[in-house]
Amino acid sequence: MTLRFGVVGTGAIGKEHINRITNKLSGGKVIAVTDVNQESAKQAVEAYQLDAVIYPDDKALIADPNVDVVLVSSWGPAHEETVVAAVEAGKYVFCEKPLATTAAGCLRIVEAEMKQGKKLVQVGFMRRYDSGYIQLKQAIEGNEIGEPLMIRAAHRNPQVGESYTTDMAVTDTLIHEIDVLHWLIDDDYKSVQVHFPRKTKYSHANLQDPQLFTITTNRGIVISVEVFVNCQYGYDIQCEVIGDEGIVKLPEFQSVVLRKNQKLSSTILNDWKYRFMDAYNVEIQDFIDSITKDGKPNGPTSWDGYIAAVTSDACVKAQQTGEEELIHLQERPAFYSEKGLQII
Amino acid sequence: MTLRFGVVGTGAIGKEHINRITNKLSGGKVIAVTDVNQESAKQAVEAYQLDAVIYPDDKALIADPNVDVVLVSSWGPAHEETVVAAVEAGKYVFCEKPLATTAAGCLRIVEAEMKQGKKLVQVGFMRRYDSGYIQLKQAIEGNEIGEPLMIRAAHRNPQVGESYTTDMAVTDTLIHEIDVLHWLIDDDYKSVQVHFPRKTKYSHANLQDPQLFTITTNRGIVISVEVFVNCQYGYDIQCEVIGDEGIVKLPEFQSVVLRKNQKLSSTILNDWKYRFMDAYNVEIQDFIDSITKDGKPNGPTSWDGYIAAVTSDACVKAQQTGEEELIHLQERPAFYSEKGLQII
Amino acid sequence: MTLRFGVVGTGAIGKEHINRITNKLSGGKVIAVTDVNQESAKQAVEAYQLDAVIYPDDKALIADPNVDVVLVSSWGPAHEETVVAAVEAGKYVFCEKPLATTAAGCLRIVEAEMKQGKKLVQVGFMRRYDSGYIQLKQAIEGNEIGEPLMIRAAHRNPQVGESYTTDMAVTDTLIHEIDVLHWLIDDDYKSVQVHFPRKTKYSHANLQDPQLFTITTNRGIVISVEVFVNCQYGYDIQCEVIGDEGIVKLPEFQSVVLRKNQKLSSTILNDWKYRFMDAYNVEIQDFIDSITKDGKPNGPTSWDGYIAAVTSDACVKAQQTGEEELIHLQERPAFYSEKGLQII
Amino acid sequence: MTLRFGVVGTGAIGKEHINRITNKLSGGKVIAVTDVNQESAKQAVEAYQLDAVIYPDDKALIADPNVDVVLVSSWGPAHEETVVAAVEAGKYVFCEKPLATTAAGCLRIVEAEMKQGKKLVQVGFMRRYDSGYIQLKQAIEGNEIGEPLMIRAAHRNPQVGESYTTDMAVTDTLIHEIDVLHWLIDDDYKSVQVHFPRKTKYSHANLQDPQLFTITTNRGIVISVEVFVNCQYGYDIQCEVIGDEGIVKLPEFQSVVLRKNQKLSSTILNDWKYRFMDAYNVEIQDFIDSITKDGKPNGPTSWDGYIAAVTSDACVKAQQTGEEELIHLQERPAFYSEKGLQII
Repeated sequence: MTLRFGVVGTGAIGKEHINRITNKLSGGKVIAVTDVNQESAKQAVEAYQLDAVIYPDDKALIADPNVDVVLVSSWGPAHEETVVAAVEAGKYVFCEKPLATTAAGCLRIVEAEMKQGKKLVQVGFMRRYDSGYIQLKQAIEGNEIGEPLMIRAAHRNPQVGESYTTDMAVTDTLIHEIDVLHWLIDDDYKSVQVHFPRKTKYSHANLQDPQLFTITTNRGIVISVEVFVNCQYGYDIQCEVIGDEGIVKLPEFQSVVLRKNQKLSSTILNDWKYRFMDAYNVEIQDFIDSITKDGKPNGPTSWDGYIAAVTSDACVKAQQTGEEELIHLQERPAFYSEKGLQII
Repeated sequence: MTLRFGVVGTGAIGKEHINRITNKLSGGKVIAVTDVNQESAKQAVEAYQLDAVIYPDDKALIADPNVDVVLVSSWGPAHEETVVAAVEAGKYVFCEKPLATTAAGCLRIVEAEMKQGKKLVQVGFMRRYDSGYIQLKQAIEGNEIGEPLMIRAAHRNPQVGESYTTDMAVTDTLIHEIDVLHWLIDDDYKSVQVHFPRKTKYSHANLQDPQLFTITTNRGIVISVEVFVNCQYGYDIQCEVIGDEGIVKLPEFQSVVLRKNQKLSSTILNDWKYRFMDAYNVEIQDFIDSITKDGKPNGPTSWDGYIAAVTSDACVKAQQTGEEELIHLQERPAFYSEKGLQII
Repeated sequence: MTLRFGVVGTGAIGKEHINRITNKLSGGKVIAVTDVNQESAKQAVEAYQLDAVIYPDDKALIADPNVDVVLVSSWGPAHEETVVAAVEAGKYVFCEKPLATTAAGCLRIVEAEMKQGKKLVQVGFMRRYDSGYIQLKQAIEGNEIGEPLMIRAAHRNPQVGESYTTDMAVTDTLIHEIDVLHWLIDDDYKSVQVHFPRKTKYSHANLQDPQLFTITTNRGIVISVEVFVNCQYGYDIQCEVIGDEGIVKLPEFQSVVLRKNQKLSSTILNDWKYRFMDAYNVEIQDFIDSITKDGKPNGPTSWDGYIAAVTSDACVKAQQTGEEELIHLQERPAFYSEKGLQII
Repeated sequence: MTLRFGVVGTGAIGKEHINRITNKLSGGKVIAVTDVNQESAKQAVEAYQLDAVIYPDDKALIADPNVDVVLVSSWGPAHEETVVAAVEAGKYVFCEKPLATTAAGCLRIVEAEMKQGKKLVQVGFMRRYDSGYIQLKQAIEGNEIGEPLMIRAAHRNPQVGESYTTDMAVTDTLIHEIDVLHWLIDDDYKSVQVHFPRKTKYSHANLQDPQLFTITTNRGIVISVEVFVNCQYGYDIQCEVIGDEGIVKLPEFQSVVLRKNQKLSSTILNDWKYRFMDAYNVEIQDFIDSITKDGKPNGPTSWDGYIAAVTSDACVKAQQTGEEELIHLQERPAFYSEKGLQII
């Protein structure tokens, strides 16, 4: 059985997913595409020599009975409407982050999905598929470090453009930690506070950089995440979980080791694309396999999308107030209580 | 276009390749299988729900006009005959190591292939597709370490069974270094000498373990490879290339880092399968892509299979004589002068 | 010239200093000792075969004209009185931390010293003499990482006894980071806030453990220090300085690397004594050499002792209030403006 | 009690020892010096403000009844005569390597010492006092790696001058591994063979560089040591001991870790002086302490000096013949059977 994808949004990320499904993975096929820029959709079909229909809009694409999965990689504000429509049509959905730009929007998707009576939606938080984070989770669940008490993490980019503003440190950057960390420790967030260190000279007027987020969870775990998007030296993701029996840390990205010019060195990536390239492939292959085998996706759910939205809102508010802000989630429906992404 | 595979030999490795082509990679399909044990062939078809013909023998499978590629994963002594037949039928061949059990057998394949006027055969030396070795090669070709002068390598397994004898340290184990190292430095071997250190208590009467091979190349590079197949602690592959400007070393296998019980530790694999799992996938995907795009495979050639056979013979002789033994290769035909496996 | 020490307090630390001066270092000699427990003083003289007078109290010892230096290793509450008396007598002083138990006490010492017109006092903060911290400081001052923006540090002990209470996480433990970090970045502290993560099961009723301190400096550097005194796994000191051009991190304690039982591991110390053993030796040798060559000690001053006291008070208050507390220092007298501890 | 040193040879190493004894260590004092260049001796006395007699030659210095220890740091060919004379005078001797330039010369010292009926001589092989090698020895003796089977080591210098010839790779460089490795595994050498890899472009006509030595021991341990004295990138000492239960490796030299310019790097030393600076200090302090406490030195003995001379001769012969050369030691006298340098 081959899972038939309709892709909504053929920008950079959309094209990468098309390439992945077409040329790298097994069990999926792109049979329909659309984009607000129809020219872009055409170019994608040509570039990857797809045997795919080009639709004028998402509605028409969703209506195609041959489409099993709607892959949403349009711009963020358009996500909610497409996802709701696809869910109401009973289609599977793979939606790039954010699921919706507001918590209310996420809840509307949650409700639509629950009405369908089965899980249909997966949100594109790929870090859960990274072998490093999977090893971290295995270590925690295998009780290697006892009870988690703290997490210390860092998310660093070499640089960002002028259009990247202070709030985007949350909505574009921290958002990945927001998703992966609550999954890692199987806990919900309770509050957040932000400290702004001295600003790097490489930042600009509208961007406070770096930032230090202190997040607490219901069980009392304290998470300290540094976001530093003009760190210059490379793309670098750090995560260390401190438990009452030991500490476990994400590995450095794998590189040969060089002895030269009085330095023992390994390479740090400059581009985020390479860091999680394998994770993207594993993510989509797992999405295809889970649906094919179990009839439902196994990754981050609509509820995880909602958690990300609520937490993200509180983090942005904390940036503005300088105070500790509460992260208030609605009660988790039983529908979403089942654990996803079984670690082998 | 989908490349259609006929698999000769449905043992453990054959099944893994079938699974890989069917469920993990893109662009290939298994449409025919055979095995001396027909029951095994049937089981493979069922296990992977293949839409494939079960042939009584390799001849019949090769004769199927729908078969584009013959994947040879039968036992070693049978390889030569199958490969020659497939080549003479103009089929592409992916042959697990060894290409043939003798140097003369490899040359017969070389001749058959040259007669066809195009490259058809790839030998299953997967290490060239490992990201660590690729980084090593990039470092060398990018002139990071200057001219290579020495290589120090180690190939360690946790343990082997009673049937594993001294010569198998060459034919089953060192064989991977034999292939990957001459590719790494783009040089040919000239001589080999073996030292037998004190035997580990975990070995047995018919196995000298560990062993230390000192191999020289035409350009004068000295390669020191330790083979230690009862090292107990894990599966561990080390390789360090020493150049006149610097030294570059294979990374350790990636693992989270644990602080616990007064130890800072990471995990060493116990099973070789995990070490090169990605390399196997990349290898077969590249094989499919190269044929699809360029009409010929891009990996280790029949000539590389011949080099491995000649070198392997000399290494076994050196185990027996204790002397330095020459590695005498025929002159490389222009047909095989083109470099394969472009590193991006 | 040999510097003649009078030791006030012959407990564990006092004895270690006596042993150090007598048997390991050059240029110093213990010629007088005293302790509130005279028996202890006698035992010290015998154990190290000192040619030293045993005085009934600090006053008498200070009055001995042969005593050049008063080494104060009595219990904390007694420090101030001894140090003031020694300074007023024109003697050099090496005082273990704390200089005095209150900020006011430290200021009285500062005033007494300024009245003498020359620096006489060094406080026993040995980390400034640790080769790792010295390399950090060299990296910062050599502009390797640009302008420091953040520090992330951790101070972990395997376990503490029942008598160790929440405030001692500051006064006994964090106090070392308080001294070394302002020296490292050449800045003064401005405020501090404390987060209490979920308590480890290895703690007890009167100890919140771990704790996370967020300290800001006048230049806006944000320092995040974890104190975790029942971490079980070992004694572990971490410090990472994040600058606008790069990041520099304290090395792990040096250990051989072991491959065994599927682990690649190095050893983490269990006992703090070994971690800074070299630093203690370098510290006292530098104290002796500086006085001998330059007529004054070169290490942490009375003013540094005052900074530690004020900061420590604010940290304890922040533990109690849960709020951000200001760290208000008096203006630094010109007398203490000169930089100490030249890094070679 | 203060050990009184007479120093024979006030060149670079002699001066460093004088400085060490005078300004860094405890329990020793330089009271006499001599040098074939009397001016050099005078300068040393002035530079370190020694209260020391300048003697016209070693004979006169040895005859001074106040001299307890003769420290021999003259040029190699002069060692034997001075050491024999000092031993015959019943003086303790600390002799820089080589003990004598010939094996026969070493035996003459051995005989002179045995005639005195007590150990008097220590040879200046400082590596045994390096904390890394000590940890290696502890790991081996603590049975962490089971029975040693192989050692793989490297001795690399950034560059050497034109006067450094092929044989000096043994007599100046490998000599340190020769001493420390037999101590490490408590075994005697049996044979040696040399391979010459392709020569680095940074070498010169009279120097084969790098070189690879394969040494076997009586118990069958195979030792592979690379000597590479124009490696350019730094001073780097590697040693890995491979046992039947695990492998233990010397730590890298301790350095802060820098993230900058897409590199994660630590510093490799450029100068050998810093690598073993601590070891030199520990060595001389242990020499002083052992004599003071036990009446005899505890480090490398005259017999170790003899082993080094015999092994060194065989290695140079193996460079010339290209064959495996035997290392034939006389039987070890019971006098030297006691183990030195107790590891705590």
